Amino acid sequence: MLFMVRIYFLKWIIITFAFTKFMNMLHFDSDYMEGAHPTVMQRLVETNLEQTVGYGEDEYTRRAADLIREACGCPDALVRFLVGGTQANATIIDGLLHQYEGIMAAETAHINNLEAGAVESSGHKILIVPNHQGKVAAYDVERYLTEFYDNENHQHMVSPGALYLSFPTEWGTLYSLGELEALSRVCHKYNIPLYMDGARLGYGLAASKDVTLKDIARLCDVFYIGGTKVGAMFGEAVVTAHPELLPRFFTFVKQHGAMLAKGRLLGVQFSTLFTDNLYLEISQNAVNQALRLKKAMIKKGFSPYVDSPTNQQFFCLPKSEIERIGKFASFEIWAPCGPQQSVVRFVTSWNTSDQMIDEFISKL
Amino acid sequence: MLFMVRIYFLKWIIITFAFTKFMNMLHFDSDYMEGAHPTVMQRLVETNLEQTVGYGEDEYTRRAADLIREACGCPDALVRFLVGGTQANATIIDGLLHQYEGIMAAETAHINNLEAGAVESSGHKILIVPNHQGKVAAYDVERYLTEFYDNENHQHMVSPGALYLSFPTEWGTLYSLGELEALSRVCHKYNIPLYMDGARLGYGLAASKDVTLKDIARLCDVFYIGGTKVGAMFGEAVVTAHPELLPRFFTFVKQHGAMLAKGRLLGVQFSTLFTDNLYLEISQNAVNQALRLKKAMIKKGFSPYVDSPTNQQFFCLPKSEIERIGKFASFEIWAPCGPQQSVVRFVTSWNTSDQMIDEFISKL
Amino acid sequence: MLFMVRIYFLKWIIITFAFTKFMNMLHFDSDYMEGAHPTVMQRLVETNLEQTVGYGEDEYTRRAADLIREACGCPDALVRFLVGGTQANATIIDGLLHQYEGIMAAETAHINNLEAGAVESSGHKILIVPNHQGKVAAYDVERYLTEFYDNENHQHMVSPGALYLSFPTEWGTLYSLGELEALSRVCHKYNIPLYMDGARLGYGLAASKDVTLKDIARLCDVFYIGGTKVGAMFGEAVVTAHPELLPRFFTFVKQHGAMLAKGRLLGVQFSTLFTDNLYLEISQNAVNQALRLKKAMIKKGFSPYVDSPTNQQFFCLPKSEIERIGKFASFEIWAPCGPQQSVVRFVTSWNTSDQMIDEFISKL
Amino acid sequence: MLFMVRIYFLKWIIITFAFTKFMNMLHFDSDYMEGAHPTVMQRLVETNLEQTVGYGEDEYTRRAADLIREACGCPDALVRFLVGGTQANATIIDGLLHQYEGIMAAETAHINNLEAGAVESSGHKILIVPNHQGKVAAYDVERYLTEFYDNENHQHMVSPGALYLSFPTEWGTLYSLGELEALSRVCHKYNIPLYMDGARLGYGLAASKDVTLKDIARLCDVFYIGGTKVGAMFGEAVVTAHPELLPRFFTFVKQHGAMLAKGRLLGVQFSTLFTDNLYLEISQNAVNQALRLKKAMIKKGFSPYVDSPTNQQFFCLPKSEIERIGKFASFEIWAPCGPQQSVVRFVTSWNTSDQMIDEFISKL
Repeated sequence: MLFMVRIYFLKWIIITFAFTKFMNMLHFDSDYMEGAHPTVMQRLVETNLEQTVGYGEDEYTRRAADLIREACGCPDALVRFLVGGTQANATIIDGLLHQYEGIMAAETAHINNLEAGAVESSGHKILIVPNHQGKVAAYDVERYLTEFYDNENHQHMVSPGALYLSFPTEWGTLYSLGELEALSRVCHKYNIPLYMDGARLGYGLAASKDVTLKDIARLCDVFYIGGTKVGAMFGEAVVTAHPELLPRFFTFVKQHGAMLAKGRLLGVQFSTLFTDNLYLEISQNAVNQALRLKKAMIKKGFSPYVDSPTNQQFFCLPKSEIERIGKFASFEIWAPCGPQQSVVRFVTSWNTSDQMIDEFISKL
Repeated sequence: MLFMVRIYFLKWIIITFAFTKFMNMLHFDSDYMEGAHPTVMQRLVETNLEQTVGYGEDEYTRRAADLIREACGCPDALVRFLVGGTQANATIIDGLLHQYEGIMAAETAHINNLEAGAVESSGHKILIVPNHQGKVAAYDVERYLTEFYDNENHQHMVSPGALYLSFPTEWGTLYSLGELEALSRVCHKYNIPLYMDGARLGYGLAASKDVTLKDIARLCDVFYIGGTKVGAMFGEAVVTAHPELLPRFFTFVKQHGAMLAKGRLLGVQFSTLFTDNLYLEISQNAVNQALRLKKAMIKKGFSPYVDSPTNQQFFCLPKSEIERIGKFASFEIWAPCGPQQSVVRFVTSWNTSDQMIDEFISKL
Repeated sequence: MLFMVRIYFLKWIIITFAFTKFMNMLHFDSDYMEGAHPTVMQRLVETNLEQTVGYGEDEYTRRAADLIREACGCPDALVRFLVGGTQANATIIDGLLHQYEGIMAAETAHINNLEAGAVESSGHKILIVPNHQGKVAAYDVERYLTEFYDNENHQHMVSPGALYLSFPTEWGTLYSLGELEALSRVCHKYNIPLYMDGARLGYGLAASKDVTLKDIARLCDVFYIGGTKVGAMFGEAVVTAHPELLPRFFTFVKQHGAMLAKGRLLGVQFSTLFTDNLYLEISQNAVNQALRLKKAMIKKGFSPYVDSPTNQQFFCLPKSEIERIGKFASFEIWAPCGPQQSVVRFVTSWNTSDQMIDEFISKL
Repeated sequence: MLFMVRIYFLKWIIITFAFTKFMNMLHFDSDYMEGAHPTVMQRLVETNLEQTVGYGEDEYTRRAADLIREACGCPDALVRFLVGGTQANATIIDGLLHQYEGIMAAETAHINNLEAGAVESSGHKILIVPNHQGKVAAYDVERYLTEFYDNENHQHMVSPGALYLSFPTEWGTLYSLGELEALSRVCHKYNIPLYMDGARLGYGLAASKDVTLKDIARLCDVFYIGGTKVGAMFGEAVVTAHPELLPRFFTFVKQHGAMLAKGRLLGVQFSTLFTDNLYLEISQNAVNQALRLKKAMIKKGFSPYVDSPTNQQFFCLPKSEIERIGKFASFEIWAPCGPQQSVVRFVTSWNTSDQMIDEFISKL
């Protein structure tokens, strides 16, 4: 009974912080600007002074893995928790590949541009396949593989050893179920694991018309469920229904410096996110708010640079508009799109409120 | 005013968790079994729903760095925050060394035994120098270096490029100020950076008779202040008064997968630990409790295997005693020390209470 | 006197092998199909049973280095001899770069396509800059560098740490003196070493209208003089007028497995090639024969795919012609160039005889 | 007929060089001071101006591989030719190991001391097992493996992934057939490949009382037959009866920069060495001469530091004797063995003549 009261106070206190926060700028820079979802934070507080064994061998981590296996419909999946996205990509890709293999990816892939060469630093080349607004097409992958094996010099070249996708992509776009099935078919035909970077997986699933988490788990050989950007304080859950693809993964994670000593911190967070569908529920908010923002921008006369259904929205704006909007909202300059024009990116998150978007619209 | 009340309640709530925790076993396995110190946790809660820029460019991180620079007496030091110890060691060592260089270390060094080959996985050999209960002596380092350069084949060998020390060592022992000064002199004579692994730095400083944090910062070219084991939820603060030794360290950290997106989490924790001397204060408790435990063990007739003044205590116990004590306390089997005997390790932490040690003594 | 007679016989014997060789196919596959130039072979025979110290510390190697320094007009250059091209590229590039740096290169670069990911396997990303028939332009390099440093995310990206050129390029094209000077200026402006892969350097110099070996040595910070394809049995001579760019290079070469125990074999070969201008003289033949072949192909109605002035010639041929010519000559299929058409490559060498080209023309 | 005459002259010429060589010092520094055996050189000359495809796809290489398969009694073995020993060790070990694995080896192992950290530079730790005059014992290997898997922390440690032996060892000692069989049994029990560095394999086989090449091929999972030190100009033949242990080895070799473009050079040399038992015959001479030298030294009152039956002989000599003998013979200072004393190493080779040893004895 005392316990219930304590929790009640705590909840109230944590939540009130959200409203008392002073806001002089509307932030759409990124989805890692937030802390943890209040419920996640609450569980971290509640479990803070317990003592548990380290390295993810504790009960919280076991429970989180169970919940994820259930949500994925993969009762035998290997689930391990890492701290961040670049780390997850580098560790998993290095684990999947033989030393003479590289990973196929779009030129726009995060691993290719914004991870400081972490994949190459563990010895693997990124093999560029064509992309369409960040998405890779099954026929391009198949063509790459056919041409590779037809090439009489292919033994002098880096062998394609896995395929990297991101869902949503770096341009906010999504694969349809059919597209994923086709990619999975090509990969299996050539015996190449399909790996999905799910840093924003929740936002992708919330926005998708036909792809579910179970589909992802069925079609991707390895993927990770992003926590850092979707309600966790930090953390990414690596999932594979084919544990033999990542042998001795505990040691491998340690060798990559990716092992969190107090592994239970990840377990506590992910077990919270995968209880009562919290992960998908909070993801939906980001997508809803992003679509409101998008609609307002279109109404104002700006055309989307890419037709993104997810929490990242891109517009090609003239410099003057960038300056004007930049006075009340922050966002990233993404790429040039003509003289005196740049593509800008607006990102919403699980924590973006109706008020924020209202205010944005009113000032726009 | 409302704010003050809120904080008061929060503090009270967080602290009460500590006492309501159920204890059926006394844990002395490791100092990473705890969560965060309540004050650290409180600050994480308070700042949770703020939005800040990522990657350690925020105000909390800046403040933490300033506080650490002040505590170290190094106004121009580079301070960067990483997540864990293996990661810190691998990233820093790789950053300090040329690709043809290795790092000198004791055979007992953590990097040599229990970090899954992370140093070698970034291409560097560990060059073993003799150790004395985990400690490296200046004359052994000098002999190694002299013999290396005298060896007519030294160009075929891995060049010694840095020296690794841990403080306290893996056997709980400490360098005296004189020993550190001698090591620093040898390193500078041969133009080799002295690097200190401070995973348990607080406990070392609390136990040392003559070494201060300012001494460490003056004598070691690079070191890190361990947070994970000393009051933080996670995090290690890398400090160097010679930033030119770690050029483009931001990119380097990112490449190693060691960059925390929400860098402020580290800033919030370390600024708390370095406010009002919290870091050293809570460290003192671990040492006090460890010495109580040691005294009780000695009184009971067990001789210490190593005469450790810090929060790790080692005893060579017969199997029967290991089993008996193992019924009410958990600890690690560390090494064999004769037939039917093993060295065991007891570790206390900032959170080990008087009651825990009382109970241990009464059951012993 | 007896010695003179012996040499005479030997020369005669070695040379006669060339004529008695049975030829049923005209080989234009590559320039590494040959053995060593007879004079090089003769010197290897003459010195075969001498005993010398290893690892390039012998007199032959010293003399070869002196001759190369003289030919390059660089009295203080570091000259070291490696065995092969992929090895030279991987070792030098790894030596030039910090671990967080990548190397800028054309997409067509040999290191990017046909060296099995050796550059990435030592941890470095290849940063693609635009190319024009294999050549990189100074303004593209400058644009890459400007955009990189202007990019607010550049700390998350691989730093450009050196520029890779090949001379001649993989498409047989050549940089003019003006182009090289411009590239050198941009590199120095951004403090980035300019590295030239000279696997076919002799053929490039023989074909160039204005670039000399001294120009190369002056404008490139590091380069290598290819022996394997240009008269040596094997071997590449690495040259740099800035030895500080490759510190402790002996150890580095050994670590890369690139150290030849009997280093004198390389010294003997290169001192022969750099005596009496042999290297450039024999290179001229390859270019002359290639131009005869090119002229004949043009006369026959085939247009060059690339207007190459060097020993590699490219034509886009229909399948039927590929089959017809393939009956009497061998060559490589290089790339597709339309339906039922492929670019093919003909390569001549120092050993391509007038008769070979005559026969080719008569059968064409 | 003309051909016969030519060959006759050539043979005569090449051999006469051996006698006209001027000798003012007796060299026992190393076995890589020589060139190629005259018959090997002759075959290189004879085939010099032929044109063949590259990368070991030619007829000479095929024939050499066949001859080696026959000599090894392994009709299905994979045989590939590399250039040098450090390169062979680094490439093979990297090929055999998973990225989280290290290689067990004696502290005295060449890979541990004199290969500039090549093994670590490809990411693998060397795991030290005890040695007895350079030899590793089966029971020590078994103890290492048992203790490793019994250690509750073994997932935090580098997994032992292969065992490295050298035959003869770096101290000239040899494994008996029984010892090799025991080592092989332990390795297979733990499913760990047994790898043998055969840089001086010929000399080991010539000196062994019971081990044959077929035994090596049967008991070692992978090994290489050293050519550089045993009659070849350069080259090492990698042999494995289990090609699945080195998947896609062609690409792997290329990636390591270990692929010789003119692969036939290795094929020509090894097909010569494995014709008419040349390899073993010339090895015998080195051993015979070494034993003569040893006997003379013993007679003179010097005791061997290690009782080596092979072409490396070790003596602990006082400084004065080192200086005296050093006036007419060169050798390496190997290690200290007391005040004013050093172990020195004398190495003979296939080319050490009776006269050389006679002269050494007379001057001793």
